[in-house]
Amino acid sequence: MTSVELLAVVPDPGLWLDADPTTILARLFQRHGVPVRGRRLVALDEDAAEHALRQAVEGGGLVICLGAGGGAERARQALARLTGSRLVLSEGVLEAVAASYAQRGHAMPRRAEALALIPQGATLLAPPGGGEPGLLAEVGGTLVAVLPGDAGVASTLVEAQLLPRLLHRAVEPVSRLHTLKLVGLDGAEVETRLAGALRGQADTGARVVDVDGEVWVRLELRGPTVAAAERRFAELAPVLRAAFGAAWYGQDEDSLPVVVGRLLKTRRLTLAVAESCTGGLIGHRLTDVAGSSAYFERSLVVYSNPAKQTLLGVPAALLARFGAVSAECAEAMARGVRAQAETDLGLSVTGIAGPEGGTPTKPVGTVFIGLADLRSVTVERHRFDRDREGNKALAALWGLELVRRYCLEPTRPVAAR
Amino acid sequence: MTSVELLAVVPDPGLWLDADPTTILARLFQRHGVPVRGRRLVALDEDAAEHALRQAVEGGGLVICLGAGGGAERARQALARLTGSRLVLSEGVLEAVAASYAQRGHAMPRRAEALALIPQGATLLAPPGGGEPGLLAEVGGTLVAVLPGDAGVASTLVEAQLLPRLLHRAVEPVSRLHTLKLVGLDGAEVETRLAGALRGQADTGARVVDVDGEVWVRLELRGPTVAAAERRFAELAPVLRAAFGAAWYGQDEDSLPVVVGRLLKTRRLTLAVAESCTGGLIGHRLTDVAGSSAYFERSLVVYSNPAKQTLLGVPAALLARFGAVSAECAEAMARGVRAQAETDLGLSVTGIAGPEGGTPTKPVGTVFIGLADLRSVTVERHRFDRDREGNKALAALWGLELVRRYCLEPTRPVAAR
Repeated sequence: MTSVELLAVVPDPGLWLDADPTTILARLFQRHGVPVRGRRLVALDEDAAEHALRQAVEGGGLVICLGAGGGAERARQALARLTGSRLVLSEGVLEAVAASYAQRGHAMPRRAEALALIPQGATLLAPPGGGEPGLLAEVGGTLVAVLPGDAGVASTLVEAQLLPRLLHRAVEPVSRLHTLKLVGLDGAEVETRLAGALRGQADTGARVVDVDGEVWVRLELRGPTVAAAERRFAELAPVLRAAFGAAWYGQDEDSLPVVVGRLLKTRRLTLAVAESCTGGLIGHRLTDVAGSSAYFERSLVVYSNPAKQTLLGVPAALLARFGAVSAECAEAMARGVRAQAETDLGLSVTGIAGPEGGTPTKPVGTVFIGLADLRSVTVERHRFDRDREGNKALAALWGLELVRRYCLEPTRPVAAR
Repeated sequence: MTSVELLAVVPDPGLWLDADPTTILARLFQRHGVPVRGRRLVALDEDAAEHALRQAVEGGGLVICLGAGGGAERARQALARLTGSRLVLSEGVLEAVAASYAQRGHAMPRRAEALALIPQGATLLAPPGGGEPGLLAEVGGTLVAVLPGDAGVASTLVEAQLLPRLLHRAVEPVSRLHTLKLVGLDGAEVETRLAGALRGQADTGARVVDVDGEVWVRLELRGPTVAAAERRFAELAPVLRAAFGAAWYGQDEDSLPVVVGRLLKTRRLTLAVAESCTGGLIGHRLTDVAGSSAYFERSLVVYSNPAKQTLLGVPAALLARFGAVSAECAEAMARGVRAQAETDLGLSVTGIAGPEGGTPTKPVGTVFIGLADLRSVTVERHRFDRDREGNKALAALWGLELVRRYCLEPTRPVAAR
């Protein structure tokens, strides 16, 4: 299938440490089942953009070059050189740029006029909402698009203008990509089960990847048409379900908080959380989902012992005897927050994220997770081996996972009220 | 100065959506002042790794190729082809790999033997803790290192083995990079002030970048030696301080939660937080800093109105009259959490992250932030224009910033107890 290469021309490729400008577009293509064959950040300096563009074009399909933080002009110059055309002033673009400055109540600075210089012959891709347009050209059979660095605008242009062209050009046989997301099996075990499930399936490729405590299976389903490839996925799903069981929590755009939220809503259950070592991360992840107020009631980040006592009613004697990082404390926290918030479920996490605070019996990475309903409490002990941020992330992941497993048990969920 | 290009050979370049394998190394070089000229993720397929490696070598300096999720073999094959050498079995590497499996209590799978095939003539870079080694070769004056995909192991090898070689080879004049981090000025204003501050400074390059609500200034200081370049930075600092004032909150590895934590500790102030729309993100960011329990006491994620009333004592009449997203509610939340936690400061955030919930008078992105001490409360109204996650992030940023500004005022901070 036609694949995509994503470039971004940026002031400093070392600066984009977390979400770089190619990230959001990768996710978009992911969602539409289009393989991303490479992602690259290049510096503004000298000929880096032109070089990178030239190399990317060799791969065929679609090449997208984003210009961020001053990279837009550089990307346009590179496209002009690549297509062997002159840069000409586009009156239409000049107007659009001026209008977008006016809309924000600013006068257009002189240097912004450079944004209206476009390679002669390039197709303009106008964003529906107005503003700086993208450019499209064809170089030796490869579609090359230069898009604004604003990821929102770029995404709109991809969806409205580029994906239709790309799918129109797709040559048969096509393939579709789907990502299965799993929690609770290790990568090697997933590999083994996957090999069994896919035995004799010549039209299906698969890869297993570890992603921050989860295991993702990337399936490539081939067929003569998109519909046929999608049908193969539907046929395969029961086989995969049998192989992975409940560990398979979702696919593609699903995330654990999204799936947990969906289950809580279906089961009509509400949740309150008491967090110690995760410091608020569970609440943060739950509330990244729009509409989470339907089931998420509160999270108490009880970082000190007094907070655990006065807010959650954890007895001082319990803390003195077992310590704040203990199964007993996790149980009391889960019960306490559930009772206080009057929710169906109470989830608690207490542990040692590190780098300090470990003891011989409770080394760094020791985490207790509790889940209380009206009748009972479950407590799990974990031992994570990452750094502080990594241990917090895994503790949040397994906390959410405990809620998910609870909701999946057919006999368990009982509304408290 | 010698620059670095980072490659990662991965199963699917579209999959690494957030922190990709080159991220941690970019941060490391950043910290050591070595410019990263490009970062690239390439697919395992076919000759992509060899192609990318060949192109990167043209840039000189140091090229690092990480092999993640099965990419290690591919990276070694690419290096062998690039150096025109055969792959030979290294008994030493075989032992190291077998030992690392044994340590984890696993038998070495047959396919792991392929990890012991290395290009003839390459230098082995052994990690101090044992395990899979890296490889180093020189191609036309460029250092090329193939490192394990585990970012922790790769970082150790970079610090212990590659940085010393790189700095040893550095040709004069050298340059040093420093990043100034600012909150509270927009990018255009920073550009203007920077131009004034750097007038006539021929040995200093600068770039301004917007990063998630902050503005970063990337300075490149040139000089005949590393020490001279660093001296230039020290000389320039007072001029920059005068230009940016309190907006300049930190540099290089500093983050806002780190700086806020440092200020709270110095001032001997403690903090409790009441979060609504940020959902726990402020607590999460504060507790990413090791040792934060010294000043961070609790955060109450009061997502529902009953939680605001019963936990924080926000009057029902206030909620009915002004709504949960109001200056009045932010004030009551800040006072309530401070009183309840018996801390010096109480920080509150309430707002509409979106995409739903906006009204004509309080559109999506409206956020109120309150900060209470023993004597007074400050409330700020903001209007953010990002998506749900972006609005949450900006609300958390401005909450932390309000605490920072408070701590900077010489007359204000008064310990409550």
